[in-house]
Amino acid sequence: MPEAALLDGLPGPDRGSGDLLRARCSRVLRPTGALSRLDELAVWLAEWQRTDEPGVDRPAVAVFAADHGAATDGVSAYPAEITGAMFDALDKGAATASVMARQLGAVINVVDVGVGEPTGNIRHEAAMSREQFDRAFERGREVVSGLDCDLLVLGEMGIGNTTAASAVACAVLGEPVERMVGRGTGVDDAGLERKRSVVSEALARVGDIEPFEALRQLGGFELAAMCGAVLEARIRSIPVVLDGFVVTSAVIPLQLAAAGSLDHCWPGHVSPEPGHAVLLERLGRSPVLDLQMRLGEGSGALVSVPIFRLAAAAVVDVATFEEWGLA
Amino acid sequence: MPEAALLDGLPGPDRGSGDLLRARCSRVLRPTGALSRLDELAVWLAEWQRTDEPGVDRPAVAVFAADHGAATDGVSAYPAEITGAMFDALDKGAATASVMARQLGAVINVVDVGVGEPTGNIRHEAAMSREQFDRAFERGREVVSGLDCDLLVLGEMGIGNTTAASAVACAVLGEPVERMVGRGTGVDDAGLERKRSVVSEALARVGDIEPFEALRQLGGFELAAMCGAVLEARIRSIPVVLDGFVVTSAVIPLQLAAAGSLDHCWPGHVSPEPGHAVLLERLGRSPVLDLQMRLGEGSGALVSVPIFRLAAAAVVDVATFEEWGLA
Repeated sequence: MPEAALLDGLPGPDRGSGDLLRARCSRVLRPTGALSRLDELAVWLAEWQRTDEPGVDRPAVAVFAADHGAATDGVSAYPAEITGAMFDALDKGAATASVMARQLGAVINVVDVGVGEPTGNIRHEAAMSREQFDRAFERGREVVSGLDCDLLVLGEMGIGNTTAASAVACAVLGEPVERMVGRGTGVDDAGLERKRSVVSEALARVGDIEPFEALRQLGGFELAAMCGAVLEARIRSIPVVLDGFVVTSAVIPLQLAAAGSLDHCWPGHVSPEPGHAVLLERLGRSPVLDLQMRLGEGSGALVSVPIFRLAAAAVVDVATFEEWGLA
Repeated sequence: MPEAALLDGLPGPDRGSGDLLRARCSRVLRPTGALSRLDELAVWLAEWQRTDEPGVDRPAVAVFAADHGAATDGVSAYPAEITGAMFDALDKGAATASVMARQLGAVINVVDVGVGEPTGNIRHEAAMSREQFDRAFERGREVVSGLDCDLLVLGEMGIGNTTAASAVACAVLGEPVERMVGRGTGVDDAGLERKRSVVSEALARVGDIEPFEALRQLGGFELAAMCGAVLEARIRSIPVVLDGFVVTSAVIPLQLAAAGSLDHCWPGHVSPEPGHAVLLERLGRSPVLDLQMRLGEGSGALVSVPIFRLAAAAVVDVATFEEWGLA
């Protein structure tokens, strides 16, 4: 698919800035390594913000919302109408991610990429036509192009989307259904069984499939948009904090299509959705938080944002031993 | 010791406010339980702030600094003079905790309770006389009395104080030296051996001992002050976020002297110092963060402060299903 072509010539990290910051980590007024993972996050920010004075002064959140054809198959604890109601609540500042963004001084963009206009039911048809997929993917890129931010959080809302995410993750990673399908917003045993059936049928339908095509056949509009958003962030060298299972499933095709293309992404947290830890292992990065959060909307990533902010400040703003007149 | 008398009639949590907040957790616009541990933190804040609209608007940090007689026994990677230099850096805003406090909008108090005036060497004498202990303990209480805050973080600075903390923790918990002595700021194998010897000799010197007496005999001025500070916070029903191994060792005598007297304290993080996890198990509360931080100064607790802030906002400021017109 043409998306794969976009992965050629992506900018890499700015190792120079990273090295400068790493050197400062060992000179500031504390035992070397005492902040451990915070130093690691600060170096990563420096590499992608391309400065040895990284900071989180202009964080932004983009939440993509859409509906899913498979939602009619009883895969969620909530009816499909909830997607629209939550889109509205997110947009008007009343939902969890809106409140968190406000607390953090982050701009929030809530983007309708298919609310009330569900994808095809992945059980027996492609989620999106080629044109629909391209439109959603480009919408994600466009949203990021319009942002002025130094750290980007992606979030999603879409009843039924953990089913779509599980299908994508199974297809691209070759993992068994049992490992990648969880309870999402909290379905009961019968609902979990239905989710597994839908994913199994969808996987049988598509057979062996390349990563972006898996996203088109099995994903959803908001997943395609997030994938485009992360690619655009990479082109612009904007560091991205990943939220939970759905976001990570949406972007993992980039990594599978070209190793290293998610190096500008850090997982903000790990959720109890069982497939998330599997995805993070493939990503090769350790999540900042483990607070058993399983909401989506970008909320898990948002909770980690102040930690990136403190990590940067704790290197940039702390005096060095030399500056403090200590040998 | 007279401190024990202060533990009679301490205020308990405000269950009414906690219950109101918990009820709201299940009515806000998200699946019940989706924020999991964040909801738990919000309820705890409600119980101790005694309001069903908890928040972290006026956080404060008190960092206590002092020197230790045992520092001359080669138990630290740094010379004792560093305590004074770091006190100065903390006080003038150049150290890690100062920078973090500034980022968080938290007031920071840096309190000298014995910088340049070390305790006795616990290997062969009591760390503090009765009068010295009382003075430090009261100083801690006094500092908290003077604060106007809705969340309190305690921190410490004192070359040699992980040795003192290990000795206190061993004595009050009855744990073996090997389990409670770690590398602190990063001593080498020989230094670790010296730490273990000092702690073993100190424990042999005091024998069986009650918790506050252990703090006087084996602790340090900053440990006694933090113990007093946490008691005063309890009297004033101010929730406290605990930092690492030294802070937790300093306050654990309160728990041992009267079960439940640390219910107003939540561990902000767990450090790689091996005794910290042991202490937290006794405390019976799960730390918010595990970022392998081992600095002290209150830094680990400070990094968790925004999470308490977001936890409260995510219940208080998010609309309920009813408010949003959804059944």
